[in-house]
Amino acid sequence: MRVGIIGGGQLARMMHAASIGLGIRVSLLAEGPDVSAAQVVHDVVVGDWSDPAVVAAFARAVDVVTFDHEHVPTPILEALVADGVAVRPGPHALVYAQDKAAMRERLAPYGHAPANRVVATPDDLRAFGDEVGWPVVAKTSRGGYDGKGVWTVHDPSGAHVPFESRSAGPTEAQGRGHADVRVVAEEHVPFVRELSALVVRSPHGQAVAYPVSQTVQLDGICVETTTPAPGLTEAQATECQRLALDLAAGLDVTGVLAVELMEAPDGRILVNELAMRPHNTGHWSIDGACTSQFENHLRAVCDMPLGLPTARAPWTVMRNVLGGPRADLVKGLDEVLARDPSLRVQ
Amino acid sequence: MRVGIIGGGQLARMMHAASIGLGIRVSLLAEGPDVSAAQVVHDVVVGDWSDPAVVAAFARAVDVVTFDHEHVPTPILEALVADGVAVRPGPHALVYAQDKAAMRERLAPYGHAPANRVVATPDDLRAFGDEVGWPVVAKTSRGGYDGKGVWTVHDPSGAHVPFESRSAGPTEAQGRGHADVRVVAEEHVPFVRELSALVVRSPHGQAVAYPVSQTVQLDGICVETTTPAPGLTEAQATECQRLALDLAAGLDVTGVLAVELMEAPDGRILVNELAMRPHNTGHWSIDGACTSQFENHLRAVCDMPLGLPTARAPWTVMRNVLGGPRADLVKGLDEVLARDPSLRVQ
Repeated sequence: MRVGIIGGGQLARMMHAASIGLGIRVSLLAEGPDVSAAQVVHDVVVGDWSDPAVVAAFARAVDVVTFDHEHVPTPILEALVADGVAVRPGPHALVYAQDKAAMRERLAPYGHAPANRVVATPDDLRAFGDEVGWPVVAKTSRGGYDGKGVWTVHDPSGAHVPFESRSAGPTEAQGRGHADVRVVAEEHVPFVRELSALVVRSPHGQAVAYPVSQTVQLDGICVETTTPAPGLTEAQATECQRLALDLAAGLDVTGVLAVELMEAPDGRILVNELAMRPHNTGHWSIDGACTSQFENHLRAVCDMPLGLPTARAPWTVMRNVLGGPRADLVKGLDEVLARDPSLRVQ
Repeated sequence: MRVGIIGGGQLARMMHAASIGLGIRVSLLAEGPDVSAAQVVHDVVVGDWSDPAVVAAFARAVDVVTFDHEHVPTPILEALVADGVAVRPGPHALVYAQDKAAMRERLAPYGHAPANRVVATPDDLRAFGDEVGWPVVAKTSRGGYDGKGVWTVHDPSGAHVPFESRSAGPTEAQGRGHADVRVVAEEHVPFVRELSALVVRSPHGQAVAYPVSQTVQLDGICVETTTPAPGLTEAQATECQRLALDLAAGLDVTGVLAVELMEAPDGRILVNELAMRPHNTGHWSIDGACTSQFENHLRAVCDMPLGLPTARAPWTVMRNVLGGPRADLVKGLDEVLARDPSLRVQ
């Protein structure tokens, strides 16, 4: 079995580590010859994931295509499917992780949503804010990541900002190939904490739910998770897992579905974002669960039986350390590893 | 940090999987372009490990050299060391895993040995057998593996076999480059079971000892391990671990030292073989220990702090399934994985 991963980031790198024991061969479509995953995968194609010809040629050489990120334009993926390529998750599901406007619309029947509306102009945004109360949160419908493409608009005077910013910077780059970048306005939820419900689903519908994690986001980046989420009642945990399983089945997701949730002061659980790939709120599972999210994602996209998602310890805490431009973090690790020989680094 | 691994077998493959999380880059000197580890490592050099020029060129491009197997001739490694290359374990230690005659001689002061003697002729072997009692075990001093290069000689009439066989077949191939393949005769120990004491040691002398495993060998191949060894007394387990730690320090081993042991009917613990690389009796540690033998081997050869070797479950059982000529075992896995979602495959 040969899995083609589009995108050469850390998630592809970690998927490769998980593929080795399963005997699954990985091919990588990487943005450059030395990106994170390209350093460790044997079969690397360097090319542009927004170029239909590049993606089609890459896909023809593998048994199934999956993703390190959610940026590949839907028409490119639909063309692959029309060509008979196994794309997992399929574009009909992935669109709800790519397009926040489509997600809010599709998820309306499931409840668990803050008030929200697609807004076309600053005036629309002002009207929405006046209706639900300020501040409001504005998001580009496509291309945002790690806090980019999300704005907290505190009062009507800032309503123009999302419309000016959405066409500049990394958001534009990530959104390239998409004609329909819109702005979604959402009620600002003064949440008491964020949670993540991560499930994995097979093409034939087998699914597993990981224990729910409490997550801490800083500037839009997940910096810490604790699993299981401390103090979450069994009823709340089950509600989160059931919602994620329902969404995975309802949207026909294959592989990981990470549902980022907000816990409101009144105990309501609200959906913030969806991701359909291994997710940084699930990194704890590499050492903390019987089967990691990366292994289960690969098992799912290869239609193999899924592994047990059970936690291996009463508590697992994950800290996310971003190296930024540092090429070699290994030396810095020594002191930390010496201090705690039970610490795991991935 | 770039680690060069000589040999492209499953041990190199598993080391690569462990390297990814640590941010250690692996270069592989592989016997062919599609051997086990070459399928998954990015930086692969195809070449002959018995060619001094090939090994020297490979070593110059990495920070430290380590091994998938113990077959590289000592003079080639000594030349690397003279050239300033970090070779871990070094040839002065590795020779005791390569040469059983040298091992028996060097380990004599440690006790824990069956009666043994280097024999030059069938007559010498007959004299040894008459002295210690038949049957006796004869081994080529170099190049044996997985049961090849080992003979049980039941009576004096079979004493010629080891001398005729040592120059033919895979044993000869693995022993190439060695002028001094000798025959070691050993007392036949009617052991009640085999054990493995696996330790890892850093260049500066930090060392960790894994729980002792009970191992089952079939036709010279390790087919099953149980960790910790059932029914082993704490005193016996400590004796095994202490012996392995003493040997690692005494022989100045860097990385894994696996000491294969026999438990005699009277409770004596006798050394059977040494290995200085990750060992198939330590595969249980991938999922069963806090830090796997592969990660600790890499940490050791990179002189990083070692990780906790503690078991993560009361019992861990490893079964070794050899694929032989089958190129794709993945399909066959499905039924097994479906039957037990907690099963781990590596």
